[in-house]
Amino acid sequence: MTATKSTNIHWHAGNLSREERWKSLNSKGCTLWFTGLSASGKSTIASALEQHLVNQGTNCYRLDGDNIRFGLNKNLGFSAEDRAENIRRIGEVAKLFADSGCITLTSFISPYRKDRDLCRELHEKDKLGAIPFMEVYCDTPIDVCEQRDPKGLYAKARAGEITNLTGVGAPYEAPLSPELKTDPDLETAVRQVLRLLA
Amino acid sequence: MTATKSTNIHWHAGNLSREERWKSLNSKGCTLWFTGLSASGKSTIASALEQHLVNQGTNCYRLDGDNIRFGLNKNLGFSAEDRAENIRRIGEVAKLFADSGCITLTSFISPYRKDRDLCRELHEKDKLGAIPFMEVYCDTPIDVCEQRDPKGLYAKARAGEITNLTGVGAPYEAPLSPELKTDPDLETAVRQVLRLLA
Repeated sequence: MTATKSTNIHWHAGNLSREERWKSLNSKGCTLWFTGLSASGKSTIASALEQHLVNQGTNCYRLDGDNIRFGLNKNLGFSAEDRAENIRRIGEVAKLFADSGCITLTSFISPYRKDRDLCRELHEKDKLGAIPFMEVYCDTPIDVCEQRDPKGLYAKARAGEITNLTGVGAPYEAPLSPELKTDPDLETAVRQVLRLLA
Repeated sequence: MTATKSTNIHWHAGNLSREERWKSLNSKGCTLWFTGLSASGKSTIASALEQHLVNQGTNCYRLDGDNIRFGLNKNLGFSAEDRAENIRRIGEVAKLFADSGCITLTSFISPYRKDRDLCRELHEKDKLGAIPFMEVYCDTPIDVCEQRDPKGLYAKARAGEITNLTGVGAPYEAPLSPELKTDPDLETAVRQVLRLLA
């Protein structure tokens, strides 16, 4: 690359390293992977955390069903293969966000250990160096989830209208050693995650 | 949601809006879609721009072959269907980054107008409101690209070793009304894009 002629544009040949990026932006990227049953609090906790951090000026972004299932992953269904691909793509996108310096929150049931472990591996074995990946298990008992049931899914599952709801007709494989298990109470849970980040 | 008990955690029910996010982070997201022949300067310009903006503390991130083709899109080949899906996924991910408040740069040949137009549409018709999408056409003449030929692709194509190189054995559909056509000179091009962003 030729020398810069202007005094107000400076760059050097080659790509910006992750370290330079994070230092310049005064941010450190990571992925917080929220997992748990439907109505266990994943999106509520992640959403409250996102608001809190962004309001402080910290770059934090949430990937969830609303912006993924209807966009990037709209061509995926609910077969075993598609479910795995759904989680893989989310893991890859989370890694890109984390690499960019963003505190990245993903809130998906993600019931299979194998799929979550793959996402962890994508982060930890990144070719430019490991990116922090933390599994946050929203360990709310199923009877509490069922009482909440904001989408009426448990009622439908108990009535036999849904056959594969996670925790009822389909398995949920709890994390063996998550970085955090959240309390069922929202405020307590948000404080727990903030402590984890600190 | 119940009232917050702690004085250092504040949030309100519901999701953070894009406007609130961008205001808190003091950033405005957009996608700059670089398109052009191989060796036309897409990645070089985008890379220099990324360095310049990040060094100023502006959140800017580049999606390119290195972090997409070997990650998110590693399960795609080069059939017509896979090429379209490749660009669609990049468009969706760029939109997420732009939504987060990031100046998002994509550098892919993306030879088909239809695929690029889909990505523009994804941004402009986002259900939470249009996200700026700007097509940056690296309009470097093919003979200049061929002289540069850093990957030796044109030489291989002329020797018949590659049959579908864009511009030689496969078509490139130039943008009809790009927001910017860049100059073949790198520094001039970077200045042009900075003016577009301003």
